[in-house]
Amino acid sequence: MNKKRYTSRLDLKNGTVDMTHGSGGRAMAQLIDELFVGALDNELLRQGNDQAIFEVPPGRMVMSVDGHVISPLFFPGGDIGSLSVHGTVNDVAMSGARPLYLSAGFILEEGFPLADLKRIVESMAGAANAAGVPVVTGDTKVVEKGKGDGVFITTTGIGVVPEGINISGDLARPGDRILLSGSIGDHGVAIMSKRENLSFETAVESDSQALHDLVADMVAAVPAIHCLRDPTRGGLATTLNEIARQSGVGMQLQEEAIPMKPEVHAACELLGLDPLYVANEGKLIAICPAREAERLLAVMRAHPKGAEAAIIGEVIEDEHNFIQMETSFGGSRVVDWLAGEQLPRIC
Amino acid sequence: MNKKRYTSRLDLKNGTVDMTHGSGGRAMAQLIDELFVGALDNELLRQGNDQAIFEVPPGRMVMSVDGHVISPLFFPGGDIGSLSVHGTVNDVAMSGARPLYLSAGFILEEGFPLADLKRIVESMAGAANAAGVPVVTGDTKVVEKGKGDGVFITTTGIGVVPEGINISGDLARPGDRILLSGSIGDHGVAIMSKRENLSFETAVESDSQALHDLVADMVAAVPAIHCLRDPTRGGLATTLNEIARQSGVGMQLQEEAIPMKPEVHAACELLGLDPLYVANEGKLIAICPAREAERLLAVMRAHPKGAEAAIIGEVIEDEHNFIQMETSFGGSRVVDWLAGEQLPRIC
Repeated sequence: MNKKRYTSRLDLKNGTVDMTHGSGGRAMAQLIDELFVGALDNELLRQGNDQAIFEVPPGRMVMSVDGHVISPLFFPGGDIGSLSVHGTVNDVAMSGARPLYLSAGFILEEGFPLADLKRIVESMAGAANAAGVPVVTGDTKVVEKGKGDGVFITTTGIGVVPEGINISGDLARPGDRILLSGSIGDHGVAIMSKRENLSFETAVESDSQALHDLVADMVAAVPAIHCLRDPTRGGLATTLNEIARQSGVGMQLQEEAIPMKPEVHAACELLGLDPLYVANEGKLIAICPAREAERLLAVMRAHPKGAEAAIIGEVIEDEHNFIQMETSFGGSRVVDWLAGEQLPRIC
Repeated sequence: MNKKRYTSRLDLKNGTVDMTHGSGGRAMAQLIDELFVGALDNELLRQGNDQAIFEVPPGRMVMSVDGHVISPLFFPGGDIGSLSVHGTVNDVAMSGARPLYLSAGFILEEGFPLADLKRIVESMAGAANAAGVPVVTGDTKVVEKGKGDGVFITTTGIGVVPEGINISGDLARPGDRILLSGSIGDHGVAIMSKRENLSFETAVESDSQALHDLVADMVAAVPAIHCLRDPTRGGLATTLNEIARQSGVGMQLQEEAIPMKPEVHAACELLGLDPLYVANEGKLIAICPAREAERLLAVMRAHPKGAEAAIIGEVIEDEHNFIQMETSFGGSRVVDWLAGEQLPRIC
């Protein structure tokens, strides 16, 4: 890109987004050149076309989209930039696929500080680089002050499904074991603590992370995995209900098998939240035939992102598709869908 | 999907979007089942996973994203739903590719009428069906009233580039001819007329349409096309400046060769707009070697979406990358980049 075209450089320290940055004209070109392309630097993006062209390996492909409207934009353990990479990389990976590329659509609110935007785009670039999944094409729109909320980022990811892998939410079968890759509730509690300005003795950080490397190990070792899904909005409870409905099965969980950090447990008590419904951004649920469960568990535990993995229950026959849970006190409860709104704008 | 799960059906007549529709819980599942999946109906979306899996033909792939924040949401000749399909189908097609699939991320504002959302999603489905490019995966987020503006839709499209086609904004060469597929300014004028509540003797409608079928004919007949781009935000002038900068060339246009409807010309005079900078959503610019220009023009004119195509100028050597235009009055002017903000939220 020819930067000599601009009479002066963007004021990335004190400048703000204005309507000209969405006009399609020179100001938008400058914003893209100096802020986006610089940070997200890769050859495909540098081509400067309205689309990216690339070779893909043969095989089945997967495509997934996730909009990000999280508030606040910056939170302990991440920000909307890194989250928008992790969220979509994970959605692609939950098919068993290897994620390849991302697109990113930004909707900016007039008046948003360019310094914050720069921080977000750099965080996005860091997450994309760390995951090895570049943002290859993008779009920027600007809306008037009061018609947006700082920044919204919608990312779409594509990937390639390895030969012989067939993972879907409708493949859970009675007898299958349910595995969880780590502790629940970290992301939602980190966001709520920040919103409520709470501080705990031990800070809770979001678990926002890309899980495709963990998934790659899992599908390589146990190609017979039936379902994979990341329990984001609505938490573990809602995600399991979704799978139960899709597969036409029920589930039986053991509460004490579900990993949870003591500080998350404490924060949930204080905030009046049920951790089963609190969002996660770096955990996954795997459902596999019983005979494969111990091997899958071992593979997960051997990976840093699955070190605390556990078998938390099993799939059962149930025409009502209920999720039942044996509680730590020896009782039993039905874990229903999230009914109302627990945590708005959590991702 | 098992609709018996919901105690009552969505009130698509008088209901509105509320925060629970973005929660990840039962209300969101119902909105997706009853409003989105119903309208956008296709097998991949019905799978109900967080991603769609499909086979793709071998070859180079293309990926493009476009956010849509147009205001008003409904306008003469279209709405944000159809526009969000056309915009991204066209961005994919401008590489010469055949578009295959779309993803769609919705950001809804609390309080938005479900009846309007239904109308938008049905329009989107109609446009996707007509184009033969289904929406195979989606996402819905909800923001509080006053933190959005009704509906924003970000779509990403993927497609396959035919063997032997190599189209990019940096391939324009001195001597190449510049072709335009039809009249300019229709979309922008339609939007501005609606915003300003103007009515003209002859109503101006948006030209919003998918151009991939026109492109398919063009690349089949003239594989040597160098550049294709749709002159959306910033209009013809800005798009030509982008290409000139990317290719390191200048351009010489003939004003009288540029097709424009008399009613668009009149409206631009009244609104104080320069039609060269007004957005289009159903037109394309093609740049090809001089020896192929007449043949390409004939192919374009043989297609209903290119019936008014014209050769509007040629690529010249110019280290300043200026676009010059011989005016209808015999003078000459430099057609610069759009400098400020002509028409905010035009797409």
